[in-house]
Amino acid sequence: MAADQKSPHDLPDVAGLSVAVLGGTGDQGRGLARRFAMAGHRVVIGSRSAERAETAAAEVGQGLGAGADISGADNAAAARQGDLVVVAVPWDGHRALLESLADALADKIVIDCVNPLGFDKKGAFALDVPEGSAAQQAEAVLPRSRVVAAFHHVSAVVLLDPEVDRVDLDVLVLGDDRDATDTVRALAARISGVRGIYGGRLRNAHQVEALTANIISVNRRYKAHAGIRITDV
Amino acid sequence: MAADQKSPHDLPDVAGLSVAVLGGTGDQGRGLARRFAMAGHRVVIGSRSAERAETAAAEVGQGLGAGADISGADNAAAARQGDLVVVAVPWDGHRALLESLADALADKIVIDCVNPLGFDKKGAFALDVPEGSAAQQAEAVLPRSRVVAAFHHVSAVVLLDPEVDRVDLDVLVLGDDRDATDTVRALAARISGVRGIYGGRLRNAHQVEALTANIISVNRRYKAHAGIRITDV
Repeated sequence: MAADQKSPHDLPDVAGLSVAVLGGTGDQGRGLARRFAMAGHRVVIGSRSAERAETAAAEVGQGLGAGADISGADNAAAARQGDLVVVAVPWDGHRALLESLADALADKIVIDCVNPLGFDKKGAFALDVPEGSAAQQAEAVLPRSRVVAAFHHVSAVVLLDPEVDRVDLDVLVLGDDRDATDTVRALAARISGVRGIYGGRLRNAHQVEALTANIISVNRRYKAHAGIRITDV
Repeated sequence: MAADQKSPHDLPDVAGLSVAVLGGTGDQGRGLARRFAMAGHRVVIGSRSAERAETAAAEVGQGLGAGADISGADNAAAARQGDLVVVAVPWDGHRALLESLADALADKIVIDCVNPLGFDKKGAFALDVPEGSAAQQAEAVLPRSRVVAAFHHVSAVVLLDPEVDRVDLDVLVLGDDRDATDTVRALAARISGVRGIYGGRLRNAHQVEALTANIISVNRRYKAHAGIRITDV
């Protein structure tokens, strides 16, 4: 293999990068924050209220021992502090939050894991998004950031469970910037058991977000916390 | 467990059912026909031209030995002969074919595995479908049939490869009729290595069809024939 031919499995070293999790007081946000802190990252939980973020950070940090570096801040301060910024807010507030943080997020890798879903008596279903997907909305609102879509299918219950050492799923990582998707694939792989698999361009993010509705259906039928693995990779 | 409480893993016996594969001369159709014939099903390959269907059936049957029962017919005759009918036509001809076969397909389980995709220089992408998905279009056109969506992500290359004894993937099976989805889950499980996993209602079929674009991206990046497995199920 020529030196300039990169293996699709090569990962950059992201161990020294800090991670901010916006909307980090929700289940998915706390779950991801917990796993990144377990992996040794400096983690900042962001929330509208700095106080609630600090409370969540203290709670998540409690189970992790003295080495864990996890703090709370309002979303704007968290966005400034993170080398990588995960967006884990409810879909309702997605656009408004990102618009308000466009300056703080400039030049950063922004990792969108938001699933625009509705719920009715029949279960979950995908919502229409004018931009195509939450990730594409983020890209439209944050033209100076490098937007990557990832972490859609991780079960918050599993991430938060202290009995689970190894998380049995692959994270599909989508984006149009190879370095950014490689960085996020490496971040995913910091969670024990997880692989970060390149899953296509951002224009194909809708179905990955929407597939969460199917995974919810699987969970109901099988009483599971399902995830997906990609075979032959 | 009470006798009327069904395990989500229970499967009906489908060994005696015949399978028609409409559009069965294409790669995916031939691949599925081959695997169902290997499992001992009577298989009828359907095509616009009975002659081309017979040629494809002979070709697929060649590698399978004397026990295989695989024949060809025009699509209408194939639709009448199959206990279960798989729709594997190109998206272009999907609506017109099903409209023409509405009578032949009445009261049958129709298994739609069509992926409405477009392709350009950047790869594959999901097409907009007025009904939401190919499967929902089938449901709209075939009100007297029981439409199930399944087999979207199976690699034709793998299905057709005589060296592959065990196919390493799960088939997501979607539909609103429990008996029909259970039957199709059982059919999927007739392929060695495959599980049929309930994946939600038909209204959530779009993203399962569209995810094929992501799998094509995975295949390009990793030089793989990727599939998906569902974890914790």
